[in-house]
Amino acid sequence: MTNLSTKRHSLAHIMAQAVKQNFPSAKIATWPDTEDGFYYDFDFWDIEFSDKDLKKIEKSMKKIITQNQEFKKFETDYSSARKILSAMDEEFKTELIDRFESWDFKNSEKVSDKISFYFNVSKWKTSNEELQSFLIDNNFEKFEELDWDQQKTLKFIDMCTGPHVSNTKELDPNSFKLARVAWAYWLWNAENKQLTRIYAYAFDTKDELDSHLKMLEEAKKRDHRIIGQKLKLFTISDLIGPGLPLMQPAGMIIRQEIEKYLWDLHKNRWYERVWTPHLAKESLYETSWHAGHYLEDMFKVFGGTSKETFFLKPMNCPHHMQLFADNQFSYRDMPVRYFEPATVYRDEKSGQLSGLTRVRAITQDDWHLFCRVNQIKDEVKAITDIIKEYYTTLGMTNEYWVSLSVRGEDKSKYLWGEEVWQQAETALEQASIENELPYKRVEWEAAFYGPKLDFMFKDAIWREWQLATIQCDFNLPNRFDLSFTNENNEQERPVVIHRAISGSLERWMWVLIEHFAWVFPLWLSPRQVTIIPVLPKFDDYAESVLKELRNSWIRASWDFSTDWLNKKVRNAEKMHNNYILVIGEQEETDWTVSVRNYKTKEQTVEKLSDFKSRILEEIENKTL
Amino acid sequence: MTNLSTKRHSLAHIMAQAVKQNFPSAKIATWPDTEDGFYYDFDFWDIEFSDKDLKKIEKSMKKIITQNQEFKKFETDYSSARKILSAMDEEFKTELIDRFESWDFKNSEKVSDKISFYFNVSKWKTSNEELQSFLIDNNFEKFEELDWDQQKTLKFIDMCTGPHVSNTKELDPNSFKLARVAWAYWLWNAENKQLTRIYAYAFDTKDELDSHLKMLEEAKKRDHRIIGQKLKLFTISDLIGPGLPLMQPAGMIIRQEIEKYLWDLHKNRWYERVWTPHLAKESLYETSWHAGHYLEDMFKVFGGTSKETFFLKPMNCPHHMQLFADNQFSYRDMPVRYFEPATVYRDEKSGQLSGLTRVRAITQDDWHLFCRVNQIKDEVKAITDIIKEYYTTLGMTNEYWVSLSVRGEDKSKYLWGEEVWQQAETALEQASIENELPYKRVEWEAAFYGPKLDFMFKDAIWREWQLATIQCDFNLPNRFDLSFTNENNEQERPVVIHRAISGSLERWMWVLIEHFAWVFPLWLSPRQVTIIPVLPKFDDYAESVLKELRNSWIRASWDFSTDWLNKKVRNAEKMHNNYILVIGEQEETDWTVSVRNYKTKEQTVEKLSDFKSRILEEIENKTL
Repeated sequence: MTNLSTKRHSLAHIMAQAVKQNFPSAKIATWPDTEDGFYYDFDFWDIEFSDKDLKKIEKSMKKIITQNQEFKKFETDYSSARKILSAMDEEFKTELIDRFESWDFKNSEKVSDKISFYFNVSKWKTSNEELQSFLIDNNFEKFEELDWDQQKTLKFIDMCTGPHVSNTKELDPNSFKLARVAWAYWLWNAENKQLTRIYAYAFDTKDELDSHLKMLEEAKKRDHRIIGQKLKLFTISDLIGPGLPLMQPAGMIIRQEIEKYLWDLHKNRWYERVWTPHLAKESLYETSWHAGHYLEDMFKVFGGTSKETFFLKPMNCPHHMQLFADNQFSYRDMPVRYFEPATVYRDEKSGQLSGLTRVRAITQDDWHLFCRVNQIKDEVKAITDIIKEYYTTLGMTNEYWVSLSVRGEDKSKYLWGEEVWQQAETALEQASIENELPYKRVEWEAAFYGPKLDFMFKDAIWREWQLATIQCDFNLPNRFDLSFTNENNEQERPVVIHRAISGSLERWMWVLIEHFAWVFPLWLSPRQVTIIPVLPKFDDYAESVLKELRNSWIRASWDFSTDWLNKKVRNAEKMHNNYILVIGEQEETDWTVSVRNYKTKEQTVEKLSDFKSRILEEIENKTL
Repeated sequence: MTNLSTKRHSLAHIMAQAVKQNFPSAKIATWPDTEDGFYYDFDFWDIEFSDKDLKKIEKSMKKIITQNQEFKKFETDYSSARKILSAMDEEFKTELIDRFESWDFKNSEKVSDKISFYFNVSKWKTSNEELQSFLIDNNFEKFEELDWDQQKTLKFIDMCTGPHVSNTKELDPNSFKLARVAWAYWLWNAENKQLTRIYAYAFDTKDELDSHLKMLEEAKKRDHRIIGQKLKLFTISDLIGPGLPLMQPAGMIIRQEIEKYLWDLHKNRWYERVWTPHLAKESLYETSWHAGHYLEDMFKVFGGTSKETFFLKPMNCPHHMQLFADNQFSYRDMPVRYFEPATVYRDEKSGQLSGLTRVRAITQDDWHLFCRVNQIKDEVKAITDIIKEYYTTLGMTNEYWVSLSVRGEDKSKYLWGEEVWQQAETALEQASIENELPYKRVEWEAAFYGPKLDFMFKDAIWREWQLATIQCDFNLPNRFDLSFTNENNEQERPVVIHRAISGSLERWMWVLIEHFAWVFPLWLSPRQVTIIPVLPKFDDYAESVLKELRNSWIRASWDFSTDWLNKKVRNAEKMHNNYILVIGEQEETDWTVSVRNYKTKEQTVEKLSDFKSRILEEIENKTL
């Protein structure tokens, strides 16, 4: 079966062909795959292309697919390639050739000395070789004579390395959908021309497309930016700046419950809380290597009076190395395990910052372990235990999987010797097997400094998120010259294990808000109970109910406004309180509460003490 | 009785006179009071003055005091004053006159158009007037003829506004002591000449001096920098920078217990936790007023890629204003109460940074209340309740007092109208009375934006610390245009109350470490219990004891090294564990533990379950 990426690739060519049919003067630029389809950038010159035109393009694409066009590959040298493109008058593609030639292409790996094209042809009468000789013999002079618009044989040419489907009939005309129009700079450079980008969703089948569209529809309803604003979870302030969200009390409750639960899961596992400042001198990052490789993402800090310079920490690891270094540990102290849920700062571009999806203030649940190589397995086992429990509690362990990233074939690219790597890779794999993790071994994915495990979990609408991670690091202990005294009274170098369970707490709140969509499980909910007296004369009883609940740290509030009952209930529902307690004559007399469960819509009348103990149990059990 | 400041002042002149006797070429600079005495800055030119010389100076000073020298005041105009000083060849004093004249003196208030001198004279035969006419008549030309070294009448002249004792016989020659030699820049400017500073302690009586010296001796033994290093509470790292301490696990336990206790005290008082980032754009501080007045102390931040600029927050208030502003509150929601224990950054000069005494990373227990003017009293009462309970728990409420800072006479210097100030000042005073606070009303001490209460507590060695504070603020709500809807559906401006209970947590840890000196009360102690098996064969029982204690969150560890018992006990004592449990045959058989109380040195044998429940109670009760 043709793989999805090849199909998306082929659909991109078909989209470009359809655009050229409808807007002959449009120029084509580049077309990568995306996670759920692909896009293609065009230059429409002075024509304004808008969402309205998408229907037209989509229709043409479907027609092209039904024409059973073939994709024909044609390879040539740089100079011939340039002639073809110049005949086609495609300036962006020509610039790409220039860049290939000068090795100057962004992130370029070594590129081939051949340039390949794909031709879309229908009712093709001649062989591939005949086409090649036709083009070469004619020195491309007759190229302009080819007319694409009139259903002749050559439909479209694009410079491309492929692969593609061999015939458009392999594509399902109902498996894709044009998504939206956006804009983008040519080659991601703000000084270049602004191009029009057309996004499309594309899948193997119509069913898959439909369920993706349904998921998107669902995701839109649970957009964390809207929920965050409506439920007053967080605030973005123009005066403070983009990517720097402020946690309102309600959001902070969720964040603190998460942090508390994380810490509780480590009860008696000998983890220790530490705290480190948000600044450090450049010397720390020179030692850690970040100054040489990470500088662009780091915020630089200047003293007002002292004129001294610092950096905001972009990660906690170098600080934690300093905490370890200030002790004289022996082998009996190992492993040493630090935890710090700390905010680090990274300079993301303003344009990419939105809600909690991309932020500059990133609060990491950052844990660093220092251990001996032969302790890796047990440590990893303990961590994966915790990770499994955590994500099960949150209802996210359906069809999760784990990527075990190991070295590629060329072992020379990795730090430290063969033996340590072997032991570490085996320890990670062994721990995965013993904990029955659904893991896949992925070669070449290890960092140069050590192998790792990445956990992929699915949320309520089946989106996959890379969340928890466990990474071995042979590099930092080396750079900071860390050691402990072993049994032979020699200095031994520890291994560092970086680990995160939630990852960034901001991103994690985004995931959680959209996973739970408006109604949080009781233990996480900022608004657990609201109490509504039907008339002011029941205010006293309402207040004693409130007191009773709050004394057990239940997050309860009461509505003592003079609004009508219905309005009060509507208000309480708007804030998605898990339980609404309505209180009147009968309730006061019986010392009961009329309970409305917001999620199930169930209504019950219960003794206050019964209600209290059952919701305390619901909180304690972290019931979903 | 002459007040202490006048005595210290007079002793400073005597010190200068003694220095001139011993080092005639020394030049005199300035001499302020300090909290426990005074200092005087001198320029010794090429002579190296050191701690060894202090004895000599002290001896001369005592001799001067016994000479019953009189202090004679002499006032003249600027030009005559300059002539006197030029005759004396005192360049620093001359520069001061220049500065007085050009109004350029640091922090200058309006200075007088007269310059006054104080003359020290012994066996004075002429009247004050005669001295004046002698100097003026002679146009100071004979000034050089005065010989101070040979017991003649005029002993010393210093430019000074006074007041002074009238005769040195009012001073107790045993009530002062020279402390140490330091250096300082002339007029605090690093580009100026470096001067020699001689510090002295000075009190009314010898007894007071002695108890102060004893306190200092005691303080030295409990120096938080030494305890912090020995008990591994915090770390200062050269790679990270001065004034940026890192909390080791043991220090973090203290910090977290403090934070937890602070929060527990607010249970059911409707406070809410919030979180705000450490960065903000300049626009926030333009709105808040800090950009115009506080810039020197603020760290500026530059993006690596985005090139955007920010400031590190030097306080949390402006961020909290933005949290409030993003809500539409009604009068029913008031007061709104935010809590954030957050780290702010201020650019203190490197030279002043040492241990936790002065830091650049300041973690404030920052609480902001938004309320109506008529709610101030109840809020302040609730806060003072909490403050009293908190400091009583910590054993610091002996002879504490509270400064109620109100406006001075000139009411035009204060923001907002008379009515609001009246109400706020009355509310603070009324709350102080109703809560039986030992308060003093201090005029002119209020900030321009509102009145406040400052709490002064004494530690175990009777040092006084300004710690908790409650400040009304009419300014920030105004600048951020904050409002809520009142009963008449109008927008009403809230008052902000800034409050801190511990103040900076770094400073607070410094106070606590030196207050408790090595042994923390059990609830705060990072090392509550250590378990020592007398032989390896009791390791299993030791481990089960450990597990039992740790399951109740008791901070227990065990020493499973093969060291001898005595060495293990010594090690445990070195880390100041509150309880040491020694375990052997008998203990294992009886399921008991042999307990050594580190503080009382008591030794008992107890059932493990009894020991556990009694120390849980000790923790719960926060026993001192």
